[in-house]
Amino acid sequence: MRRGDTRIEAVVTAVRAGIASRIYGPGTRLPSVRAQAKAMELSVSTVVEAYERLASEGVIASRPGSGFYVTGAAAPLSLADIGPRLDREIDPLWMSRQALETGADVLKPGCGWLPSSWMYEEGMRRALRAAARADTPMLTDYASPLGPAELRQLLSRRIAATGVDASPEQLMLTESGTHSIDLVCRFLLEPGDTVVVDDPCYFNFHALLKAHRVNVIGVPYTATGPDIDVFEAVLQEHSPRVYITNSGLHNPTGAVLSPVTAHRVLKLAERADMVIVEDDIFADFETTHAPRLAAFDGLSRVILIGSFSKTISASLRCGCIAARADWIDSLIDLKLATTFGGGRLASDILLMALTDSGYRKHMESIRHRLAEARERTIARLRPLDIEPWLVPQAGMFLWCRLPEGRDAGDLARACLREGVVLAPGNAFSQSLSAGNFLRFNVAQSSEKKIFDTLSRALSKRKPL
Amino acid sequence: MRRGDTRIEAVVTAVRAGIASRIYGPGTRLPSVRAQAKAMELSVSTVVEAYERLASEGVIASRPGSGFYVTGAAAPLSLADIGPRLDREIDPLWMSRQALETGADVLKPGCGWLPSSWMYEEGMRRALRAAARADTPMLTDYASPLGPAELRQLLSRRIAATGVDASPEQLMLTESGTHSIDLVCRFLLEPGDTVVVDDPCYFNFHALLKAHRVNVIGVPYTATGPDIDVFEAVLQEHSPRVYITNSGLHNPTGAVLSPVTAHRVLKLAERADMVIVEDDIFADFETTHAPRLAAFDGLSRVILIGSFSKTISASLRCGCIAARADWIDSLIDLKLATTFGGGRLASDILLMALTDSGYRKHMESIRHRLAEARERTIARLRPLDIEPWLVPQAGMFLWCRLPEGRDAGDLARACLREGVVLAPGNAFSQSLSAGNFLRFNVAQSSEKKIFDTLSRALSKRKPL
Repeated sequence: MRRGDTRIEAVVTAVRAGIASRIYGPGTRLPSVRAQAKAMELSVSTVVEAYERLASEGVIASRPGSGFYVTGAAAPLSLADIGPRLDREIDPLWMSRQALETGADVLKPGCGWLPSSWMYEEGMRRALRAAARADTPMLTDYASPLGPAELRQLLSRRIAATGVDASPEQLMLTESGTHSIDLVCRFLLEPGDTVVVDDPCYFNFHALLKAHRVNVIGVPYTATGPDIDVFEAVLQEHSPRVYITNSGLHNPTGAVLSPVTAHRVLKLAERADMVIVEDDIFADFETTHAPRLAAFDGLSRVILIGSFSKTISASLRCGCIAARADWIDSLIDLKLATTFGGGRLASDILLMALTDSGYRKHMESIRHRLAEARERTIARLRPLDIEPWLVPQAGMFLWCRLPEGRDAGDLARACLREGVVLAPGNAFSQSLSAGNFLRFNVAQSSEKKIFDTLSRALSKRKPL
Repeated sequence: MRRGDTRIEAVVTAVRAGIASRIYGPGTRLPSVRAQAKAMELSVSTVVEAYERLASEGVIASRPGSGFYVTGAAAPLSLADIGPRLDREIDPLWMSRQALETGADVLKPGCGWLPSSWMYEEGMRRALRAAARADTPMLTDYASPLGPAELRQLLSRRIAATGVDASPEQLMLTESGTHSIDLVCRFLLEPGDTVVVDDPCYFNFHALLKAHRVNVIGVPYTATGPDIDVFEAVLQEHSPRVYITNSGLHNPTGAVLSPVTAHRVLKLAERADMVIVEDDIFADFETTHAPRLAAFDGLSRVILIGSFSKTISASLRCGCIAARADWIDSLIDLKLATTFGGGRLASDILLMALTDSGYRKHMESIRHRLAEARERTIARLRPLDIEPWLVPQAGMFLWCRLPEGRDAGDLARACLREGVVLAPGNAFSQSLSAGNFLRFNVAQSSEKKIFDTLSRALSKRKPL
């Protein structure tokens, strides 16, 4: 056996082992030839030869311009197979898994939620104690299809405070905010439809829409809402079915819609007969409520999504959908078909936590702490030459530009090795034009280690 | 204006009002001409004329052999629009909504769950009290993507008791049993694929598969599993992607798979490269465990679904999926994309309830009570000439044949008017060949009123 052969065989064996152990599941992209060569201290041509051999056996397959992927004859559909695959480390799903999987010792300035200690723990404890003494049906029964009436009445009043008129009959409870959006997408979309998102937008919209196999078009987001000229052009050219956006505080930028932009967006949506899904899960963080599209529109073509995972508890799953009564009626069918009845426990605990006199005070304190954390984080990022794109009025996010020429993906990889999970900009960007942005969660950015790690990573020689 | 015109106008106005008030949403079938005529005390020809007029205006549209439906130009997709529409009163979604919507005063021998008072209430109260004292993360945080490890370890051991070898890494927690099946369908199916179900089968499979827009083919279910000759022919002719069935106790019949049928089903599935989804939510009701396809197959092409909504609490939403590790990995992505993180609270409460020493005793008592209720229900149905198709070893269901020539749909409508929700056979039957069957839940059949109502309805003159 020639010496080259042994080396090629070593690569082949390593890849096979990875597939057998399912480190490389069907559809997984193998490390690039260059990366593999470097990792195994072999020449690029050896790795190319090994990959070609595996490809000729059908174990892997190449996709032009995109690398080698593990095949899988009868492999079921995986999200990874749908649409173009990003760099795994800035893939929206990779980000979610990193943030959710890692232990308490890992710092997560990139994650999208408050630290446990900031959540409404006392309210949860009180509600759980009350639940332990509640009537039997609350403990054991399915909820009614819409969800318990008392919670819907309360949510109807709470939503009214943001200017949106939604009767309790126009509200359906779900398992979570994301579940709400998923149901609405199933209701409105067919594979191949076009959906407009903000660029940047909440990264999980990309993963969710990928699962629905629709075409996604991003419209640049400005400090007062979507760039209205681009928005108009996109509507004319692509006839999208749906526009998914945030109400109030925009994720990741922290910007809010101006009334004039809101009005124009609605007029254009009307002309294009497009439905708008307004994800309003950060409402309780606002100090004053920004304009809601649903308020102007009167829930005619706008569907509003709510959740309490960001303020009360992410452990308690409960979201809601506010929409036209006839749409709610169809959404009930879809909910029953795909999750059957909801539970009463989560919604009843939520009701108790929300009506508890402590919640208002809790949120007041959270808003105050966030304002402080925002200032502190901005001050600590400044020496690193990391600047916020704008200083938000409220909320937990800062959308920050890196020093000229630095890549957020590289930085995220480097920091992850030191136990710091960042949120690189391109995970939020449909056009992948936010490669030099990071989203910081100011509530998760109190540790000095975060800024030390960032500083070290930034001080390294720029990759060529 | 001619007198006939006024009458036609009255019908037109009534239908328009129904549409405006959204009693008739887009896609809704209007009352039949005959029913409308009777309700408004008009002639059939008047109603025909009115419907034709509305159809010519595009407000409604006729579907040959199926009646008139409300149109809706920009109406989003509703489940009602997908596939053939059944008689609303035996539509699987109608059944779910009836059972979930109606109040405590309505009797539900047709529903699919135990009465509140039979559930594991004491265990739930203990677990809630413990949860109120738990560490903060349990009260406030997202779960890890797979779900808490301790619960998966416990479920792995519990599943082993049914002969299925599933490591904790092969288990993913979900929001419910139905949510599990929905995720698996999203993972395995594309619109237009073919899926095999038992005929009869759990009625919500029909609604769920309708939402996935797949072709559904029923295979007659015998006392020992699917009719294996028909099963083989269907696999050959239609190359289905998936077979969805129950493990252990079959819903609605209460039959169990024989080892020989299990072996044949697996051999045929292997030859046809078909995946099997085994819905195992009634495992704790069995006195001895029937053969599981997943046990024979070793989770190679079988995916097992679990839930505790039927034994501990339906109010606490938590289900699980056991599958090949590489499939689980793709299912995690799909779960995160469509519901983001699960909650820790439900799974941690479930863990406490399951490890509580009382659960085993609770289920022993439930099995005992069900055996008594089964005998009592059979005895009370006998004088009505309603006979079980077989007497199940365990579980809550009795699949019963009505007296010759009686229609379960008619009976269900008549009894509903008197506050008794029945489960007519055709909701469970893909071929609509179970029109003279009803499914009884013996735990929900203790009230004398149920049998009195049935008796009155049966004693009425048969409809022509």
